[in-house]
Amino acid sequence: MIEFECLFCEKKYPADPFRQSCPECGETMLVSPSRQPKKIHSDNTASLEKFIDFLPLSSVNPEYCLGEDNMPLIRLPSLSHKYGLPETYAKTECQAPTGSFKDRGTVVAVHMAAVFGCHKIGTVSTGNMGISTAAYGARVGMQTFVFIKHDASQEKLLSAGVHGTNLIKVKGDYGKLAHLSFDIGRKHSIYFMNSTDPFRVEGYKIIGLEIFAEMSPNMPNYIFVPASSGAHLIGFLRVFQELKELGMIDRRPFFVGVQAAGSAPIAEAFAAGKEKFTRWESVNSVAQSITNPDPPGGNLALKLIREMNGRVIAVSDEEILSAQQILARSEGIFCLPASATTLAGMLKLQREKQFRPKERAVLILTGSGVKNPKILDPSKMNLQEAPLSELDSLIGGKL
Amino acid sequence: MIEFECLFCEKKYPADPFRQSCPECGETMLVSPSRQPKKIHSDNTASLEKFIDFLPLSSVNPEYCLGEDNMPLIRLPSLSHKYGLPETYAKTECQAPTGSFKDRGTVVAVHMAAVFGCHKIGTVSTGNMGISTAAYGARVGMQTFVFIKHDASQEKLLSAGVHGTNLIKVKGDYGKLAHLSFDIGRKHSIYFMNSTDPFRVEGYKIIGLEIFAEMSPNMPNYIFVPASSGAHLIGFLRVFQELKELGMIDRRPFFVGVQAAGSAPIAEAFAAGKEKFTRWESVNSVAQSITNPDPPGGNLALKLIREMNGRVIAVSDEEILSAQQILARSEGIFCLPASATTLAGMLKLQREKQFRPKERAVLILTGSGVKNPKILDPSKMNLQEAPLSELDSLIGGKL
Repeated sequence: MIEFECLFCEKKYPADPFRQSCPECGETMLVSPSRQPKKIHSDNTASLEKFIDFLPLSSVNPEYCLGEDNMPLIRLPSLSHKYGLPETYAKTECQAPTGSFKDRGTVVAVHMAAVFGCHKIGTVSTGNMGISTAAYGARVGMQTFVFIKHDASQEKLLSAGVHGTNLIKVKGDYGKLAHLSFDIGRKHSIYFMNSTDPFRVEGYKIIGLEIFAEMSPNMPNYIFVPASSGAHLIGFLRVFQELKELGMIDRRPFFVGVQAAGSAPIAEAFAAGKEKFTRWESVNSVAQSITNPDPPGGNLALKLIREMNGRVIAVSDEEILSAQQILARSEGIFCLPASATTLAGMLKLQREKQFRPKERAVLILTGSGVKNPKILDPSKMNLQEAPLSELDSLIGGKL
Repeated sequence: MIEFECLFCEKKYPADPFRQSCPECGETMLVSPSRQPKKIHSDNTASLEKFIDFLPLSSVNPEYCLGEDNMPLIRLPSLSHKYGLPETYAKTECQAPTGSFKDRGTVVAVHMAAVFGCHKIGTVSTGNMGISTAAYGARVGMQTFVFIKHDASQEKLLSAGVHGTNLIKVKGDYGKLAHLSFDIGRKHSIYFMNSTDPFRVEGYKIIGLEIFAEMSPNMPNYIFVPASSGAHLIGFLRVFQELKELGMIDRRPFFVGVQAAGSAPIAEAFAAGKEKFTRWESVNSVAQSITNPDPPGGNLALKLIREMNGRVIAVSDEEILSAQQILARSEGIFCLPASATTLAGMLKLQREKQFRPKERAVLILTGSGVKNPKILDPSKMNLQEAPLSELDSLIGGKL
């Protein structure tokens, strides 16, 4: 039987797709790891099958998958060299089927929807998670509901709506909507796979397992992860804890959760040494996909990252946009501002402490920049105009 | 020594990054296949290394790569079932690093740039190819020039410009620009890797090789490929001819090149039984990335597809948009209209001929829909608005 556990109350409950937070303390729950022996099934190429021992799945249905596994891990030699950084790698979740890491969680959650006999799924999202849930719902043939903020951009609406999902713009307190979605879900048998859904978090573990399988035994010293709801970071912390307990790694990487300074309740609490974060009244950042004033996994992320000696830091919009440019110009990788927080965080850390030679770092790039090129400043482009007749001399002048 | 060959004049020339068309007849040239024995190096996971015997490369530099290989091949059971189609698969190049199949060609071309000692690269493009060339140029550390139409969209400009490329909007006859680019290239040592660059075509072969390696011995009966310049289709035709000659396959798949009816000079010539296409005065289609009034590889594509008993057909904008919706709603795959021409073409063929049971087909989906959601009709979305208090009853009414 699959169980959820609350790490604060230290209690377990039967897994329930309509209850994702602890009935006692209200904190995010996680899937309780099975006690069975675990190994990596390296003869499989599909990640869900390769790492199935680490997941709550007993089988994988390829008809639920869209090619969301084995995202590239790319070494960034120019970046490392130019900025005096450790040997740095990008794990580019940008290339996931719907262009963000959310697909990792969604694919596990839709498998579990089938296990629980749910034929209707939903999510509360301002962007990437809604698009991902809509796409996988269509793939699996489930009716899908996406609750969105009333001011969501037309591009995001269209990219989710194209999958035939029921898009519902909700007016009112968006913070209350997540709670309300579970009530509606239970009443109407809709599995709301929201940001900290325990099965979603299981999916994020796979990103860590792929890094382990590819880099071991030369594991990274640092892993930088954007932090919004906290779920993504929690997935990483969980799986590396599991690998350590199983004796598959000697030491855990140092984890750095990175928030945008304009929306940094977790980083704020971390810096202040507090166990619990305080909800922010308002948030604002260019890194739109990680602006969460009330991160549901915030307290759990704080607990886990303290236990594992990691950090949560915040970076400014200026640092984020600069890091986005650096990745695009040094390495040809165009990611969303939310993803660029990882490099911004690494550069910030570098100013505080000296990385040691031969250290290795991985940046988790969570989403593709082509989803939102409008965030870029046109004045920073090398753009010129010329008639055909003047092209030759224009080019000559640039060389 | 690497040679280019003109299949019309049956002549060979030393490979030259500044001359991509035949000096005698002006037609597109191809890389002359080496006579060395070829095998697939299955112990490699990277496609460039796995298939290196089929490529003009003697080595692969991972620092030039961005994770452009092993794009997913996804079975589409719902689609096949709903529309009475053969067992259909999608090869989703949508998940390439810059969101289009162009990356397959660009990665080979930048390797060759290094072989030829070129430190500057360029391309003439209205969109995807410019973005791809800019990204790989940044990755490799080469100065990059992208010539674009003066009315290119801001999103495309930004997605290429973010990589620090020199973007040059050119006023005047865009058709003449491709020719002019080679003159400028030779003069200033800039390797213009335009649409039918012979090394680009070599890269497109890899898509075919991946399909072969994954599906053999149950090879597809049909492969549908969007056709614009003709280069992508030529790459497929070349590599399956090569596999047949090597005895690695018994029969070639039936290839269908699909054009948008609003820009179909190749399909027009094919239907009329002509050897050469006639340049169109103007083109217009929702499938913007395949609107080429004067496809440089058009005549070569016609020649090869006739020799191999394939077809080139055209589909209307209405059919394209319908196919785009079908893929998104039945299978959760959101591709560009240009990619959806493949399904539109298959559905069109189905109306003319009966596919046989147990046949298999592959649709080559060349680019990600998230690059241009604005092409979608908002009135086709299931979009509603509700205040928090009415959400429950709204959902109840939908079930």
